[in-house]
Amino acid sequence: SDLIRATLFPGDGIGPEISESVKQVFKVAEVPIEWEEHYVGTDIDPRTQSFLTWESLESVRRNKVGLKGPMATPIGKGHRSLNLTLRKELNLYANVRPCYSLPGYKTKYDDVDLITIRENTEGEYSGLEHQVVRGVVESLKIITRQASLRVAEYAFHYAKTHGRQRVSAIHKANIMQKTDGLFLKCCREVAEKYPDIVYEEVVIDNCCMMLVKNPALFDVLVMPNLYGDIISDLCAGLIGGLGLTPSCNIGEGGIALAEAVHGSAPDIAGKNLANPTALLLSSVSMLRHLDLHEKANAIQDAILNTIAEGKYRTGDLGGRATTAEFTKAICDHL
Amino acid sequence: SDLIRATLFPGDGIGPEISESVKQVFKVAEVPIEWEEHYVGTDIDPRTQSFLTWESLESVRRNKVGLKGPMATPIGKGHRSLNLTLRKELNLYANVRPCYSLPGYKTKYDDVDLITIRENTEGEYSGLEHQVVRGVVESLKIITRQASLRVAEYAFHYAKTHGRQRVSAIHKANIMQKTDGLFLKCCREVAEKYPDIVYEEVVIDNCCMMLVKNPALFDVLVMPNLYGDIISDLCAGLIGGLGLTPSCNIGEGGIALAEAVHGSAPDIAGKNLANPTALLLSSVSMLRHLDLHEKANAIQDAILNTIAEGKYRTGDLGGRATTAEFTKAICDHL
Ligand SMILES: CC(C)[C@H](C(=O)O)[C@@H](O)C(=O)O
Ligand SMILES: CC(C)[C@H](C(=O)O)[C@@H](O)C(=O)O
Repeated sequence: SDLIRATLFPGDGIGPEISESVKQVFKVAEVPIEWEEHYVGTDIDPRTQSFLTWESLESVRRNKVGLKGPMATPIGKGHRSLNLTLRKELNLYANVRPCYSLPGYKTKYDDVDLITIRENTEGEYSGLEHQVVRGVVESLKIITRQASLRVAEYAFHYAKTHGRQRVSAIHKANIMQKTDGLFLKCCREVAEKYPDIVYEEVVIDNCCMMLVKNPALFDVLVMPNLYGDIISDLCAGLIGGLGLTPSCNIGEGGIALAEAVHGSAPDIAGKNLANPTALLLSSVSMLRHLDLHEKANAIQDAILNTIAEGKYRTGDLGGRATTAEFTKAICDHL
Repeated sequence: SDLIRATLFPGDGIGPEISESVKQVFKVAEVPIEWEEHYVGTDIDPRTQSFLTWESLESVRRNKVGLKGPMATPIGKGHRSLNLTLRKELNLYANVRPCYSLPGYKTKYDDVDLITIRENTEGEYSGLEHQVVRGVVESLKIITRQASLRVAEYAFHYAKTHGRQRVSAIHKANIMQKTDGLFLKCCREVAEKYPDIVYEEVVIDNCCMMLVKNPALFDVLVMPNLYGDIISDLCAGLIGGLGLTPSCNIGEGGIALAEAVHGSAPDIAGKNLANPTALLLSSVSMLRHLDLHEKANAIQDAILNTIAEGKYRTGDLGGRATTAEFTKAICDHL
């Protein structure tokens, strides 16, 4: 058949409900995708050192495309965080988050339209820490030329293929001259190959100040891991929070794993109250990655129009609609 | 005489003009302070390895209190940044920035009232970096028990003596378990001694999202160096920028060096256009540190009332007043 196989991790908590919403919307939109569902295991899989099963990772590697709901890492020792394991095992080197003001959903900002692109494999996330002497501990931040070039390439290519004008590299090279300095050097090298894209460098502290004063100053932002963690959440806050922002991880060999980055909200799980917007918009990112732009546009419009109309909004957005009602409204728009 | 001697670093660019403004306001308010002025040298002083003179550092050490305008570090090799040298040589371990919405000066936020307290001596600012192999570089982040306890003590003491209810420790201990973990451990230890103050821990990415969504959720924030750098600037952005926020550095042995943290704005230097608010509010922080609360209140009220009235505002706030006119308006309020 012409169906594209994609891995689906419904995740925990509200994950299964919001995944159901995506499945329904895809069905109505006649998206040519066949889901291969994988749940987090109940035991540690020695091959992944985590509750993620080896089979589920193999599924993403084979399909090269997947969608992931929220996954709470079970508490306890001797295993790795689910999110970090996925990034590591699948070499998900870039985290891409489009962040734009949603028409009709009012926050303090109405002119946000930017993309954060985060290096997702190294930096402060090296996991290398030790105690030097009692009361003195060190963490290592690692920056490599290879990973910096790779994410810079991705950012400029993204900017070019998505009609974006400017790439800002975010750094603290005035303090970390060698690590962030190397990151900037790599960005500059790549920038030279894209003469049509404006390239600038912004210090992280100043970037955060500018973002809260006037986010319209930014277009595409590319940065090392920790700055990306911070800035992508800050940007989500500008437009209403993690419940409204899509995210997609890009891995070596063309893998794309889209994900809702909000929590699994166990308090409202199973109650038909969750807002599926972040996962739906992430599924749109996934479709764009597959060049299924027509389907992506149709679904994105249906989501945005449903939110803009305001008649069916979930509780987190001040409405009274259930997950199912909101989903149905989106399907009706299609 | 009963005069308190204080060191004044007018700094460069607009520094001398805005320092003049402070001197004038202090004269009119009859503040019992005698200034000892020190300029940045024109040669590298071998004893400080920077353009800061040894005498100027001795002056702060002797007086234990000072005020500093913006200082641009001259470009070139073989010397240290002026700001970092001051922090290092004077062991300025805590940077305290009160950040509150200015009555009558409209931004997107009107309910900001928080204090950021930043560890100012270690963390990512260790200066320890090296190339491991070609294309792989490392920076060391150092967290010590001593410095973490010291800044935590300062934060809780500040909260208690300033009628604040809550201290939030900002961290990324879910990733940097050892370094940020030690920082949190120290904060918890100190928190136990202050049962009347609510203590909480907030992950930096979530903190930034909460700050842009609802800054009223925060009261006193305490954090390692880099997070403090980022969050204090983000917070300044909420209320209008670095031109409006005071800053004070606390050092070992009771030293307090207040400072305007904005740049030296060479483009408008000497033109009588600069806004002295940040330096004036910093001088108020200095007075509070000296327990001169009556003078501090009088001057702070005069500054805030002048801005609130809106008749005399400098260009950066959308007005047409000169530095001198704005200063005179403040003096008239006194
Ligand atoms: C949960 C945490 C380890 C993770 C991170 O820091 O990367 C999260 O904040 C994210 O952005 O995906
Ligand atoms: C200029 C720079 C080194 C400095 C810092 O990073 O500490 C500045 O941003 C600050 O906050 O004082």
